[in-house]
Amino acid sequence: MHVVANAAMSADGKLSSRRREQVVISGPEDFARVDALRASCDAVLVGVGTVLADDPHLTVEDPKLRDERRARGDPTHPARVVVDTRARTPPGSRILDDEASTYVLVGEAAPEDHRAALREAGAHLLETGDDRVDLTSGFAALEAEGIDRLMVEGGGEILFSVFEAGLVDELSVFLGSLVIGGREAPTLADGTGFVEEFPDLALESVERIDDGVLCRYAVE
Amino acid sequence: MHVVANAAMSADGKLSSRRREQVVISGPEDFARVDALRASCDAVLVGVGTVLADDPHLTVEDPKLRDERRARGDPTHPARVVVDTRARTPPGSRILDDEASTYVLVGEAAPEDHRAALREAGAHLLETGDDRVDLTSGFAALEAEGIDRLMVEGGGEILFSVFEAGLVDELSVFLGSLVIGGREAPTLADGTGFVEEFPDLALESVERIDDGVLCRYAVE
Ligand SMILES: NC(=O)c1ccc[n+]([C@@H]2O[C@H](COP(=O)([O-])OP(=O)(O)OC[C@H]3O[C@@H](n4cnc5c(N)ncnc54)[C@H](OP(=O)(O)O)[C@@H]3O)[C@@H](O)[C@H]2O)c1
Ligand SMILES: NC(=O)c1ccc[n+]([C@@H]2O[C@H](COP(=O)([O-])OP(=O)(O)OC[C@H]3O[C@@H](n4cnc5c(N)ncnc54)[C@H](OP(=O)(O)O)[C@@H]3O)[C@@H](O)[C@H]2O)c1
Repeated sequence: MHVVANAAMSADGKLSSRRREQVVISGPEDFARVDALRASCDAVLVGVGTVLADDPHLTVEDPKLRDERRARGDPTHPARVVVDTRARTPPGSRILDDEASTYVLVGEAAPEDHRAALREAGAHLLETGDDRVDLTSGFAALEAEGIDRLMVEGGGEILFSVFEAGLVDELSVFLGSLVIGGREAPTLADGTGFVEEFPDLALESVERIDDGVLCRYAVE
Repeated sequence: MHVVANAAMSADGKLSSRRREQVVISGPEDFARVDALRASCDAVLVGVGTVLADDPHLTVEDPKLRDERRARGDPTHPARVVVDTRARTPPGSRILDDEASTYVLVGEAAPEDHRAALREAGAHLLETGDDRVDLTSGFAALEAEGIDRLMVEGGGEILFSVFEAGLVDELSVFLGSLVIGGREAPTLADGTGFVEEFPDLALESVERIDDGVLCRYAVE
């Protein structure tokens, strides 16, 4: 499976403010780029923190990109994936509407009533890990479902975990021209952090887009 | 006074790891750039957190840059400034050696014995603020000492505060090609963070240097 991580951060590395409310970091050019990246993938993944904070839809916006997907025999939208140990995703979330299929990776101890509500809302549940979803076997389960190209859209807790598990092949970072600040604000990679060995990136391209900078990296 | 902020951060916005041990983020080209930036300033400022974590020297390395400073009638090195409410800077710190002059901005309640030890070590003490050093009047006091061009080198707590006080004119960020991660690791701007109005930056240039990216911004 090929995994592409993508995020927009402020010039000081934040994904949003300490209130975890969405902040406009990028602009129309970057939105179009992200839309095309989504359209090129079999599934788009976020953590339950992002679902609770932003209620994202994660579908492809551009009708032309949707047509192209259908023309090549793909569903209109990539599948959506939530990483959600305790099955906390609200059944009314936009990510569970019927525009695209949705997988929820849950932990073994996810309460049965939550699971039932998610299944009722149309989600496909995949169970792995106890304390937290095990991403390595979760990604293998997604691959077994036919997902060969996966986009990870955040947030910072999930992004750290996919780096920690060595699952990321590419990273795109849009660096926006603003300062968000805050020691509690989510950053591109939170979690416990690395302390001795740091994942090395190879800078593949740098581009000015909107009023910021897009950096693309291969993960070594 | 013209204030230039500068920092090197990982691709996920960290200044160092959660252990607050220095991490190699940039390379020789960026070191030379930072050295030249220091040489172009009248003083270089850090927070006491950086003094305690890194024991930095903050002098100009390149003999040619030192010669140029002397040729134009400046001291060999810019002055050094520590922002240190309680006068916690260890008197044996490298920043207090006699290669350059050193100011310590202290709060009104800084213990007299700490102050005396710093004066003994050759520091010039400037008092302002109670809970914390008041940066606006601290910078005015530095200006009265003849400091017209000031470089702020971090860390993340001080950088946030200088943005919050509206004191920054330019920001240079070196974005290194590695992931540090960690919700407790210092970022380019920590503190309480902004929540509604975010300082806007104008991207002036983007350059690949070493294996990373240097972005220069004007603060709007
Ligand atoms: N700017 C951008 O590009 C962007 C993109 C996405 C999100 N965001 C922002 O990011 C913020 C949310 O980020 P976040 O870091 O709080 O949440 P997140 O990464 O979206 O989700 C984190 C949650 O996922 C669950 N999880 C399950 N297994 C995990 C594992 N192995 N590793 C890590 N997490 C696991 C955990 O909850 P359980 O233990 O309950 O499962 C954890 O709290 C929001 O403010 C949002 O606006 C910004
Ligand atoms: N990569 C880079 O470019 C770079 C550069 C510098 C530092 N760093 C890293 O940054 C870390 C240290 O950063 P840090 O954020 O912990 O410390 P910091 O910003 O260097 O210093 C913060 C301290 O300054 C004092 N202070 C006094 N008045 C203040 C005010 N108005 N606003 C904010 N702080 C004030 C506070 O201590 P009191 O209340 O006791 O005064 C505060 O704890 C280290 O890990 C270091 O390696 C990296």
